[in-house]
Amino acid sequence: MKRIPHKIFLTEEQIPDSWYNLRADMKNKPAPMLNPATMKPVELTDITPVFCEELAMQELDDETRRINIPGGIIDVYRLYRPSPLVRAYNLEKKLDTPAEIYFKYEGNNTSGSHKLNSALAQAYYAKKQGLSALTTETGAGQWGTALSEACAYFGLELNVYMVKVSYEQKPYRKAVMQTFGANVIASPSNTTQIGQKILAEDPGNGGSLGCAISEAVEKAVTSGNCRYVLGSVLNQVLLHQSIVGLEAKAAFEAIDEYPDIIIGCAGGGSNLGGLVAPFMRDKLTGAANPRVIAVEPASCPSMTRGKYAYDFCDTGKITPLSKMYTLGCEFKPSANHAGGLRYHGMAPILSQLYADGYMEAVAYEQTSVFEAAVMFAKCETILPAPESAHAVRGAVVEALKCRESGEKKTILFGLTGTGYFDMSAYSSYLEGKMDDVIPTDGDLAAALEKLPKVD
Amino acid sequence: MKRIPHKIFLTEEQIPDSWYNLRADMKNKPAPMLNPATMKPVELTDITPVFCEELAMQELDDETRRINIPGGIIDVYRLYRPSPLVRAYNLEKKLDTPAEIYFKYEGNNTSGSHKLNSALAQAYYAKKQGLSALTTETGAGQWGTALSEACAYFGLELNVYMVKVSYEQKPYRKAVMQTFGANVIASPSNTTQIGQKILAEDPGNGGSLGCAISEAVEKAVTSGNCRYVLGSVLNQVLLHQSIVGLEAKAAFEAIDEYPDIIIGCAGGGSNLGGLVAPFMRDKLTGAANPRVIAVEPASCPSMTRGKYAYDFCDTGKITPLSKMYTLGCEFKPSANHAGGLRYHGMAPILSQLYADGYMEAVAYEQTSVFEAAVMFAKCETILPAPESAHAVRGAVVEALKCRESGEKKTILFGLTGTGYFDMSAYSSYLEGKMDDVIPTDGDLAAALEKLPKVD
Repeated sequence: MKRIPHKIFLTEEQIPDSWYNLRADMKNKPAPMLNPATMKPVELTDITPVFCEELAMQELDDETRRINIPGGIIDVYRLYRPSPLVRAYNLEKKLDTPAEIYFKYEGNNTSGSHKLNSALAQAYYAKKQGLSALTTETGAGQWGTALSEACAYFGLELNVYMVKVSYEQKPYRKAVMQTFGANVIASPSNTTQIGQKILAEDPGNGGSLGCAISEAVEKAVTSGNCRYVLGSVLNQVLLHQSIVGLEAKAAFEAIDEYPDIIIGCAGGGSNLGGLVAPFMRDKLTGAANPRVIAVEPASCPSMTRGKYAYDFCDTGKITPLSKMYTLGCEFKPSANHAGGLRYHGMAPILSQLYADGYMEAVAYEQTSVFEAAVMFAKCETILPAPESAHAVRGAVVEALKCRESGEKKTILFGLTGTGYFDMSAYSSYLEGKMDDVIPTDGDLAAALEKLPKVD
Repeated sequence: MKRIPHKIFLTEEQIPDSWYNLRADMKNKPAPMLNPATMKPVELTDITPVFCEELAMQELDDETRRINIPGGIIDVYRLYRPSPLVRAYNLEKKLDTPAEIYFKYEGNNTSGSHKLNSALAQAYYAKKQGLSALTTETGAGQWGTALSEACAYFGLELNVYMVKVSYEQKPYRKAVMQTFGANVIASPSNTTQIGQKILAEDPGNGGSLGCAISEAVEKAVTSGNCRYVLGSVLNQVLLHQSIVGLEAKAAFEAIDEYPDIIIGCAGGGSNLGGLVAPFMRDKLTGAANPRVIAVEPASCPSMTRGKYAYDFCDTGKITPLSKMYTLGCEFKPSANHAGGLRYHGMAPILSQLYADGYMEAVAYEQTSVFEAAVMFAKCETILPAPESAHAVRGAVVEALKCRESGEKKTILFGLTGTGYFDMSAYSSYLEGKMDDVIPTDGDLAAALEKLPKVD
């Protein structure tokens, strides 16, 4: 029998030289973004005041299958890529399953997650355009950390609007961004008109992701030589994250294997969309037919209990509208939900694929997710981020089904990051203080009722 | 010109199958440990009540050059080894130096440091001996984290005595150990006689590493089927850590290079001793003559300002005595010192080599160390642990000398871990609140005066 090592590493020469644009192979393209003022599909000039030009073009490009990765991005990818594909031998043994479990591990860079893949690309294009600064928002902090590293590397100023509650509760997350030179601002703040207005009405306002997006966008469009960047949901972000799937597929080819089931956690969709991209191409072209499973939290179940409809990307309702599975942009997951993945919507690309039957979706409660994470950590010595732990849970469920059926399936899941900055959630789980929080049908109906009316 | 990749990875098949015991090639062997009751060199039976048998034998073995790494340890090393040797191209560019800078990166495992290499070995031998539990102490928490992972993997119970001040100030470090199943006890505690005595006299006592060692040893010798383990200083630990240097040397051979200068941070000596081991062999045998530089903190300068003498390994004075460079076991570095490496002594192997002129030692102040760390993070996207940052500083100093002289030297340093759990120290540095703290000659003389009298 061939011996498959624990970690399948490609060489630096095998880092893909182009991203794969899944939209090129979709018969039903994702619906276009709508300009909220005109309710017409956005054009390039609508979005270039907010996004860098090259990124705006990538956002709207449904046709080009392969988009070249510039040498300046490859150079910095070489610092931490290719990331390993890992065979989870110990987890298989623990579960006593005939399934073969692999995970693509994106936590082996200091930012601690896959977010760095797109952060570096976005910062590169901003620098190339001659911009001097970027703005963004961050909630839990993974995206803010990745973008801080990227801006430090390319020499760009960065303003991160961090939800005030997180800013106060996660001083170490803030400190990491500051170490990389970012200016971290508690949102709502006095640096924008939107922030000033909110604070005038409610000085104790603890902020929200929607408010932080609004401030970051306002800051970008009112500052000279500055643009706004976002870490998930967008087509351009899924494009950049396709490198995760391309490497995974190449690594499987190197060991002459192919996954039967591909599992990813799903918040805004950047990790899942990247991981599955080249495998989804095989499904779209008929070359192969692996099952693809999105795992979302039961507390924020956009695909399993949401609606496929046009909605704002932010709760402040200043962004274009996207057609996506959504819980309504005014939906707020319970504050007790500790596992990340709190976004109300889902990337338009994945939403269309899900609507067309190319993907399955499941939702798990957070205690079961942390249970899987702790088991995984003890077996494989990697402590998963709570977000990634959803995919771990998904893989465990499928591996246990194989134990029942005796089938030797090959399972691939995305381990998107590490949980170093999420220890309070782990403590809460270990101390038995973690609740499972599931929105009622009434909660969901109320949020969905407020969806914008689009003909 | 040949193209050297950023990261030189060996394959899993290239993980060394034996550790290298540097003592076998030393003409002047490190002085033997002394039994504090008899002041005679310890024998195997003196230490087997405290250490596992196989580890006790390794501790006393000055002769066997290569010690086989059992398959059960190799299996788990495969989860994260070989670790990469990384060419720091961006740092070279930033420093505008002709020097070629490499670092051996041991932070790419969840424990976040090289400590895991010895933790797994020690837990393996404990399991093999049929023990059911281990005890240890931890200060900052790197060793406790690594050993928690190792005990989770091998199915051993673990009691970690954590200095009470750290226990209270670092709840997340504690939470990581608990996630891996360890029982973390604030020291001094009521679980030992020593702890009870201290608490009776001083209920508010915040603890010390010395007290935690005393409790961990007492707990081990008074519990059935349990032993005590330590993460640095000991000969056995340097033996296990030799895997770091062996891999580094093999990676250099793969690219047909050899370092002119090898730099490591020095606390108890486990990382430095492991990194330099095979290169030191070349020095001892005359095969090559690289410079070896130990970097210690100016606040705890055991080699640069200490004395080579017999001393206790713990401040509680219950352990055997070792001959080493020491500041006196009652020396306490300033509480303002944030950069780790707070141990009063230095591994006996390294002490002997330093006394014999095979090594240099330098001491740097902590603000200069954090300055180098932040520069490194921005260039290379890895946030160093404060301990590792001492080696970064050492490498920067040598690279700048090369810029002055125009020499193209090859520099290797050990990047032992990541700084995720040290963000309060980074914040303090960034906010300009970090002091440099250097003991006065009077402080040092006072601590050295209390060294035990040994004929």
